[in-house]
Amino acid sequence: MVIIVVKRYDSEKIQELIYNIYKAYGFTEEESQEVAHMLIYTDLIGIESHGVQRMIMYDDFIRNGKIRVHNKPEIVKETDVSAVVDAHFGLGQLNGIYSMKLAIKKAKEHGIGMVTTRRSGHYGIAGYYANMAAEEGLIGMSSCNSRPAMLPTHATKALVGTNPIAFAMPAKPNTFIFDAATTTVPQGKIEVYRKLGKDLPALWVAKDGETPVNDHNDSVDLDLLRDPNANVGLAPLGGVTEDTGSHKGFGLGVIVEVFTSILSMGNTSSEITPDDLSVGPCQSFTAIDPSIFGDKDAIINKFSNYLQEIRDLPSVPGKPVIVAGDKEATAYKDRSNNGIEIDDKTLAEVEGIADRLGVSYEQFVK
Amino acid sequence: MVIIVVKRYDSEKIQELIYNIYKAYGFTEEESQEVAHMLIYTDLIGIESHGVQRMIMYDDFIRNGKIRVHNKPEIVKETDVSAVVDAHFGLGQLNGIYSMKLAIKKAKEHGIGMVTTRRSGHYGIAGYYANMAAEEGLIGMSSCNSRPAMLPTHATKALVGTNPIAFAMPAKPNTFIFDAATTTVPQGKIEVYRKLGKDLPALWVAKDGETPVNDHNDSVDLDLLRDPNANVGLAPLGGVTEDTGSHKGFGLGVIVEVFTSILSMGNTSSEITPDDLSVGPCQSFTAIDPSIFGDKDAIINKFSNYLQEIRDLPSVPGKPVIVAGDKEATAYKDRSNNGIEIDDKTLAEVEGIADRLGVSYEQFVK
Repeated sequence: MVIIVVKRYDSEKIQELIYNIYKAYGFTEEESQEVAHMLIYTDLIGIESHGVQRMIMYDDFIRNGKIRVHNKPEIVKETDVSAVVDAHFGLGQLNGIYSMKLAIKKAKEHGIGMVTTRRSGHYGIAGYYANMAAEEGLIGMSSCNSRPAMLPTHATKALVGTNPIAFAMPAKPNTFIFDAATTTVPQGKIEVYRKLGKDLPALWVAKDGETPVNDHNDSVDLDLLRDPNANVGLAPLGGVTEDTGSHKGFGLGVIVEVFTSILSMGNTSSEITPDDLSVGPCQSFTAIDPSIFGDKDAIINKFSNYLQEIRDLPSVPGKPVIVAGDKEATAYKDRSNNGIEIDDKTLAEVEGIADRLGVSYEQFVK
Repeated sequence: MVIIVVKRYDSEKIQELIYNIYKAYGFTEEESQEVAHMLIYTDLIGIESHGVQRMIMYDDFIRNGKIRVHNKPEIVKETDVSAVVDAHFGLGQLNGIYSMKLAIKKAKEHGIGMVTTRRSGHYGIAGYYANMAAEEGLIGMSSCNSRPAMLPTHATKALVGTNPIAFAMPAKPNTFIFDAATTTVPQGKIEVYRKLGKDLPALWVAKDGETPVNDHNDSVDLDLLRDPNANVGLAPLGGVTEDTGSHKGFGLGVIVEVFTSILSMGNTSSEITPDDLSVGPCQSFTAIDPSIFGDKDAIINKFSNYLQEIRDLPSVPGKPVIVAGDKEATAYKDRSNNGIEIDDKTLAEVEGIADRLGVSYEQFVK
């Protein structure tokens, strides 16, 4: 077991460091700002697995050519309410921001905008893009596909991705932000438990279609999660039997494929492998203006009141009812004031990247 | 334990009987045809709980004035891609068919149609409306809210409805039709197990927020499922703890509220009680034309191939991988040829309704 030391760092300084690193890769000033904002936002809302820590994976991808620094997303088909974007394997975050901005523009002009983006890259948390729409007073949705990870119900081999569904809508006091893999947990959660030396507390991983793998020391099976030909995979939301609703998580994962890879004619989960530079994941971005249905303020008030009724329910002692977005809002406030959490291993790797690129590091980290 | 005798009946004859009964209630010929088609379709795809059997509940509602036979759905707000419909408490099926036809018309003209319908009634299976769009070559989605039934994660009292999500898209050899409550199972499934004298095989019902109720003889707790103030409720998809993904099913249920009750400014789940004639559930209907994204045939072929890859996966011995819609397609073929299944108790009640309305019964049932 490795001891991991986590410290707090000023988010604005780390954001500037990221900006400088991305400029050094060759991204424009605006692009570098967008990536830095996206990664720091992720840490600010407490999703450390997908923020600064992801810079290491992206660094690998930039170096091996999987992420093509100078390629720009391109609209290949468009109507008033829809677009297909070919991302040409540019950085996932930039493709996502570009595509969601396009969906927002269409929603503001025509009420609804649906964009589906192919040949993209890992774009971080889906909730960021959904929230971009919510910050403009709209409903936002985003999803992405991935390499095979989920076991379709009864299958002994994974084929569908972790395929998250993100949904955001303005509400008081906190924006409602739902962001959930259609597997019971995403791949990253397994890694966190292994790092912490904790057994998996529920049926997150199954072997041969239905046997739970819970022992964190079971490195053979857990390593096989990365092998699309193995007899190990992630359970859909709802587990691995119809009695617990496995077919529902599986079906939702397939629906995500429709909006990402199928409508964009991009790569399905079954075609994606991390090592093949000629394939990439697909993403979807939807924005809806609530005012096409009624008075926007009245709608948001009604929604806020409904969410408050839920929060006010009696609950299991010590376990309040938490609405999607509340945890993130609390984390955002805490980390904005007290700094984002970065572990020493991640920070050392970021320092290595900065050194290699000739980016000054010390002034941003203390 | 009650012995239930189930027999097969010619679907076309029963459909004619339903048509005659609905005409006798005072519905128009077209309306009566629509209801009869919808209910028989439900039995043909094997969802007996929501087909002919539901006529008994609707008969109660028509007699107590909850369903207003002569009221027509009305568009109260509209754009090229959206509409809000006030259903004025007409029959749910007719509101649903009207609203989905409107969404389909908008999708054919402008690519996307989103309709949200308030003050409606119980509309049967959500999948029927999604499939209406698929039959026109479009993607269809439909959801509805309901009285409080789902326990939000950690809550000891239900507040969100069973809030199903239905999604349909043309595919070969079978239309992909996903139709799933955002609770682990819908209320009707509990009734089926109680009728059959079988214990509940998974955490479908919880007491005090986290204690499973599995004993089918536990009539106190299971009857309390109908009481919105009780300490018993249905588990969300994902169970009752975050470890198993409870917050995901709960969040999906809230998203369904947005598209049904919030955007239509109708009654939220928390406001719906079966006995209050001044409130009614809300529904949403979305149609999307795949051709706004690309060549429709190519998209459907790509989707069909992806679904076939899933079907072809190795699986647990004796348990094939089943894609959403496959079971329904098999049932449809079987029941079209060999008749729909109706139990003797349901049939006796339908006979009672026919007698009361002066509708000839014998000629349709043999």
